[in-house]
Amino acid sequence: MTSHGIVLFGHGARDPRWAEPFERLAARLRAAGGAAQVSLAFLELMTPSLDAAVAAQIAAGCTRVTVVPVFFGQGGHVRRDLPQLIDACRAAHPGVEIRCATAVGEDDGVLDAIARYCIDQLERDA
Amino acid sequence: MTSHGIVLFGHGARDPRWAEPFERLAARLRAAGGAAQVSLAFLELMTPSLDAAVAAQIAAGCTRVTVVPVFFGQGGHVRRDLPQLIDACRAAHPGVEIRCATAVGEDDGVLDAIARYCIDQLERDA
Repeated sequence: MTSHGIVLFGHGARDPRWAEPFERLAARLRAAGGAAQVSLAFLELMTPSLDAAVAAQIAAGCTRVTVVPVFFGQGGHVRRDLPQLIDACRAAHPGVEIRCATAVGEDDGVLDAIARYCIDQLERDA
Repeated sequence: MTSHGIVLFGHGARDPRWAEPFERLAARLRAAGGAAQVSLAFLELMTPSLDAAVAAQIAAGCTRVTVVPVFFGQGGHVRRDLPQLIDACRAAHPGVEIRCATAVGEDDGVLDAIARYCIDQLERDA
């Protein structure tokens, strides 16, 4: 049986409060119950790194890991840095299927939700 | 009558393709028709700056401008840099109401949409 992990990959920031929405997102995914493991990972300034998060999920028994870039735009971090990190994870764990999703900002449902939020802001005390 | 503008404020990046989801978001908001003006603005690496975008909306007739930070987390950029930029805009345009919304990543509807996207990734060819 496949035990599936999901890693939410964000940029990271100096202010620890920056990670709060990522933690809330992880809690939602844990409550939804679709993944055996849900972890955060960061490109810089915060820990764990992607390789540490992926290794921990595999140590916990995951046989498939899906990395979701929690970025709006696909710039150098998603187009250049992330593929290198994913390749290194695959090389370190050849028996595990490591997938990488498109950045969340490319998803129509996510853009629709942001648009709805913006419209709500316009209508507040309009 | 109040003519309301909305400015989508993002970080900016070196790769011009990074801005694509922001442009798609702006297009959705223009199609929705709630705002007289919809503009993008960036903290760094891309133009226009926030003050230039706000000034252009006011020159086009907006009497109220709402700035929406299109950021997931609220770190130094949203907590420290943005309030200073907003204060400068207010000082430059004292007759105009300039509002600043909470970052989109704090919105439950946006987090729900991202969670749904993540679950869809798990279920692809599961």
